Amino acid sequence: MVDGTNRQWILTERPTGEPSTDDFSLREEPIPEPGPNEALVRTSYLSVDPYMRGRMRDADSYADPWTLGEPMRGRVVGEVIESNVDDVAVGDLVRGNLHWAEYAVATGAELDPVDTGEAPPSTALHVLGMPGLTAYVGTVEVGHVRPGDTVVVSGAAGAVGSLAGQIARIAGCRVVGVAGSAEKTAWLTDELGFDAAVNYRRVEDLPSAIESACPRGVDLYFENVGGPVSDAVMDRLTDYSRVAVCGKISLYNLPEGERATGPRRLHQRTRTRVEGFIVSDYDHLAESVSRRLARWVEEGEVRYRETVTEGIENAPAAFLGLFEGENVGKQLVKVGR
Amino acid sequence: MVDGTNRQWILTERPTGEPSTDDFSLREEPIPEPGPNEALVRTSYLSVDPYMRGRMRDADSYADPWTLGEPMRGRVVGEVIESNVDDVAVGDLVRGNLHWAEYAVATGAELDPVDTGEAPPSTALHVLGMPGLTAYVGTVEVGHVRPGDTVVVSGAAGAVGSLAGQIARIAGCRVVGVAGSAEKTAWLTDELGFDAAVNYRRVEDLPSAIESACPRGVDLYFENVGGPVSDAVMDRLTDYSRVAVCGKISLYNLPEGERATGPRRLHQRTRTRVEGFIVSDYDHLAESVSRRLARWVEEGEVRYRETVTEGIENAPAAFLGLFEGENVGKQLVKVGR
Repeated sequence: MVDGTNRQWILTERPTGEPSTDDFSLREEPIPEPGPNEALVRTSYLSVDPYMRGRMRDADSYADPWTLGEPMRGRVVGEVIESNVDDVAVGDLVRGNLHWAEYAVATGAELDPVDTGEAPPSTALHVLGMPGLTAYVGTVEVGHVRPGDTVVVSGAAGAVGSLAGQIARIAGCRVVGVAGSAEKTAWLTDELGFDAAVNYRRVEDLPSAIESACPRGVDLYFENVGGPVSDAVMDRLTDYSRVAVCGKISLYNLPEGERATGPRRLHQRTRTRVEGFIVSDYDHLAESVSRRLARWVEEGEVRYRETVTEGIENAPAAFLGLFEGENVGKQLVKVGR
Repeated sequence: MVDGTNRQWILTERPTGEPSTDDFSLREEPIPEPGPNEALVRTSYLSVDPYMRGRMRDADSYADPWTLGEPMRGRVVGEVIESNVDDVAVGDLVRGNLHWAEYAVATGAELDPVDTGEAPPSTALHVLGMPGLTAYVGTVEVGHVRPGDTVVVSGAAGAVGSLAGQIARIAGCRVVGVAGSAEKTAWLTDELGFDAAVNYRRVEDLPSAIESACPRGVDLYFENVGGPVSDAVMDRLTDYSRVAVCGKISLYNLPEGERATGPRRLHQRTRTRVEGFIVSDYDHLAESVSRRLARWVEEGEVRYRETVTEGIENAPAAFLGLFEGENVGKQLVKVGR
């Protein structure tokens, strides 16, 4: 039994429209005690991700909604402090879908060992974790990336987008990123090897900027944002083009019941295939994709950046910052040592 | 050399928005004379099809635009009157992409023999021709129809839609048609074996009508129309659903430069695949699909209806009627004997 206090975030309101820090409440409780076949994990890093906006809704979706008054769930990397689980030892680094909290109790089945080799353990929450698999699946499995393609990635400086663009680059493509600041676009072209990057917040005419960056049109669009950025990209789709719909963050904070409108898009002439996907359908690929990404990271072919917010008390702010585009690369919350 | 007059339709204007009969002009010329390796064909039936609206535009598309001042092209079935082509004899029934005219000259390569077995030759322009292949490809190749699917077809009483629904029925699906008159919906359910049909012009609340007709949601949507009918159907798509975009006739007559708007549709949560297609990409399947459809017609499994307009002089009116939904089944123009 570990003495002390466990600070954990509770969902107190389901927002309609823009969420705010008022929707969350930080509750202090004694550090919980693991039961049989359970372990106590001290969080090192908590991952906050755009998909979590959907969990704030009480609606049928692929991810169960968070329950009001209960701790919110999220992927964490942490250290085992106490263990009643065979094969899980005190001091082990583990990953799991645990709580927005300093400590959490989990069953053995809920925990995976973290093995990131030379890379720091936090990479288990991005390049060597779910965002890495998402980037690979959207580009390769859903997007059917082909050498010579022009690939556009929106949300390109995010955890998933930055990896998707680099995978497409390795696959022999011309890669164009769309992002929302000069710092981000510079990172994409100068460090990650994107062929071009468009700052959608600064260009006067987004469609022309996309056209200049994609003189042969867009063969594959990795969609993270929705809205006007999509419109500009999707007007340039080539024959037999593909759109991998990973997310649409610009539309997540619409008031309940309100629907975004825009051009009607049914790409018959170009034979475009638009396909939505959810990474959990591809769990069977997780291990092999993670190995590929680990190798590329080791070889310097794939790079990543982390935006680290310190302290569990700042987790909601870090989460809300995703919708403002405040992160470059993966947004993490550093909780423990 | 055949004496007499050949009446043929010329495109005189490129309409913006709704086309009208003023965009066409009936020209009388002497019946043309076939040169070396050419034959003279007397049109029996001319096919008018929604895709022809695109040919009125001077825009890059999969079908070459019609040339102003020249005869418009369209698929015809006709009889060979004179022939300088080996293997094409006077009296042969042929099919080709010829003129909106009583007579046309064509090379041997432009003509296919018509072999419709027990079925009348006009079926070479629908169930045993391009519309039949379109229906099959959209349902099977693009739509990946599966037994147990709920399949919705819009434009369901048209040449393509009526066949798509019957193919889905044969494939073991619950089939729901959306059409624009009581006569049409009765035909779908009473004669073609659709499980349900919705008259979108008469229901008070289209989304509710679709919901009632599709209690388990929509697994495959065969899209012919675009617009609000699509909205109602696409709100009911199931996980891993598919949308085969064959056409969007309700949007074809927008003024140039104007874009239809509607709900933004990027179906990520349901992992929907939306895919446009063009039948000419599937010419390699034409023969085998035509054989299947011929067998089903013979067995009474697939039925068809023709709406026949008499006289080449009425061809533009027949074409324009497509956009008003005046046809039930395949719209043809009967030109010759």
